Amino acid sequence: MDPFIHILDLVGTGVFAITGALAAGRKRMDIFGVVVLGGVTALGGGTLRDVILGIRPVFWISRTDYLVVVAIAAIGTYLLARRWRLPAIGLMYMDAVGLAVFTIIGFRTGFHVTHQYSIAIVMGVITGVFGGIIRDVLSAEVPLIFRREIYASASLCGAAFLALSSYLQLPRSFSVSVALLTTLAIRITALHWNLALPIFRLKDDKDGRGDEPKAGGDA
Amino acid sequence: MDPFIHILDLVGTGVFAITGALAAGRKRMDIFGVVVLGGVTALGGGTLRDVILGIRPVFWISRTDYLVVVAIAAIGTYLLARRWRLPAIGLMYMDAVGLAVFTIIGFRTGFHVTHQYSIAIVMGVITGVFGGIIRDVLSAEVPLIFRREIYASASLCGAAFLALSSYLQLPRSFSVSVALLTTLAIRITALHWNLALPIFRLKDDKDGRGDEPKAGGDA
Amino acid sequence: MDPFIHILDLVGTGVFAITGALAAGRKRMDIFGVVVLGGVTALGGGTLRDVILGIRPVFWISRTDYLVVVAIAAIGTYLLARRWRLPAIGLMYMDAVGLAVFTIIGFRTGFHVTHQYSIAIVMGVITGVFGGIIRDVLSAEVPLIFRREIYASASLCGAAFLALSSYLQLPRSFSVSVALLTTLAIRITALHWNLALPIFRLKDDKDGRGDEPKAGGDA
Repeated sequence: MDPFIHILDLVGTGVFAITGALAAGRKRMDIFGVVVLGGVTALGGGTLRDVILGIRPVFWISRTDYLVVVAIAAIGTYLLARRWRLPAIGLMYMDAVGLAVFTIIGFRTGFHVTHQYSIAIVMGVITGVFGGIIRDVLSAEVPLIFRREIYASASLCGAAFLALSSYLQLPRSFSVSVALLTTLAIRITALHWNLALPIFRLKDDKDGRGDEPKAGGDA
Repeated sequence: MDPFIHILDLVGTGVFAITGALAAGRKRMDIFGVVVLGGVTALGGGTLRDVILGIRPVFWISRTDYLVVVAIAAIGTYLLARRWRLPAIGLMYMDAVGLAVFTIIGFRTGFHVTHQYSIAIVMGVITGVFGGIIRDVLSAEVPLIFRREIYASASLCGAAFLALSSYLQLPRSFSVSVALLTTLAIRITALHWNLALPIFRLKDDKDGRGDEPKAGGDA
Repeated sequence: MDPFIHILDLVGTGVFAITGALAAGRKRMDIFGVVVLGGVTALGGGTLRDVILGIRPVFWISRTDYLVVVAIAAIGTYLLARRWRLPAIGLMYMDAVGLAVFTIIGFRTGFHVTHQYSIAIVMGVITGVFGGIIRDVLSAEVPLIFRREIYASASLCGAAFLALSSYLQLPRSFSVSVALLTTLAIRITALHWNLALPIFRLKDDKDGRGDEPKAGGDA
């Protein structure tokens, strides 16, 4: 793997582990919950991608530096966040970097295995967003990504650009850089101006409250 | 694969994607949540089956028509359900068709790989019902299938009939048709007469309320 | 596999299936929910381990005695727990046995495949605890293991001891026995004296309530 991408990958892994550890803090978990939630957030998307594509064993089995980064990031968060309030905006920027890098790695892995653009795009998005989805499921919440912010769409745009530039045979370092910046720019713009996609409201949902997760929802 | 089964399979995929998209609408998700929930509902059961059996890559990687059907069904639902109320009873009939077809495909795949009836039956049920279970988990609900209706039991009966007819070496087209009709008939009968299996109540659960999942946890 | 370990493994499978079936009872599920929740609790950890390691098919496909044990334990619980209150403390002891055995089997499987201590320890913990995590997710609860008790930590200590004794090349039967007793002793001590790890409280979580997800159901 390209060493520049690999370093960014480890940065993304660390930042995602921190967001998982902070979610564990909001739910009052103990140190084990912190490490596990950090780990699934950081490694879950890539694990699901490798399992679906049939790559075995999954990526963090063959290179143990991923586990080391997760452990340091999660335990560090556990120790630091009890004393200091972490700078939320800084974390969100770093999280956007993780999203962008994971999307690129997912796209390249998917394209390498299947040589199909559509599958590669789906793998880019899965790698970018599923870690966060599993984190929210383990915290018993409706995954935030489904509800409010432009997040997966940023990943989707980055992956679609990679597909286009791969089809046009643009030079690899150029297309990787532009895809990275595209995803980052969309995500950070959405964060700053608080943009969101229109919400899907059913026709017979008149009172404007929707079915907040009180677990009703008849099939 | 038998072309008749394949067409029914795509119909089942489309209908399951619609039920996932409607669940996303009840939870006020954005377009991305709609497509993802549609996708996991339609593809989740077969994906889990292939991963457990060790088939790689999973089925929707090698044939991309599944992704196309999911995208059309989910986005179509997003556009239409904002304006019109979809006919609930029609959807439930189509959902029953999906359940029946997925059960048959799951059984045949499981038997093809392992040549064991018990595993094939389990794979039939997993293929039929796990997409809906993952859909409910991602919506932070106790999966409905566990609680109210005869749903998985219909799948189980269809798969058990396939095992029996395979053991008796009945002709394939006959046994597939009967299994399809058995699952459909049980499911639709349960829907019409509102049948349900007895609920499991613990001995010390005296007040008759049980531990309803409230599912508070504000995001 | 060592027959002594295999018998303990089946005992652990049965006990985990019973805890899953009881969780289904707390949620008022029907017989199918009881069997499925019993099954994922008993088989989920090992399935995830095999999928991550790339072992295919997963363990309960090749040996069907696991499915038989799950079915008997779950249906037996369904029949018995409606009439008698099961002895909670006895179940917790047996659950601790299951945790200890699953940890050992997970460690050995992980080490056999990867020859890396860190991966083997992670696989031991995953095998021991993920079945219960999936059970709690399917019941729409924050997994208890993340919150209250020393549970995963007992598994972690057992797996770490196995790694140490494997590094020191201690005799296998000795190291397996000590790892089993270590996990059991830590878990049972924690149960009896109600020990817990310190909870992670965020700096800006002043009111001391945190974001409690209600959803009671203590194990």
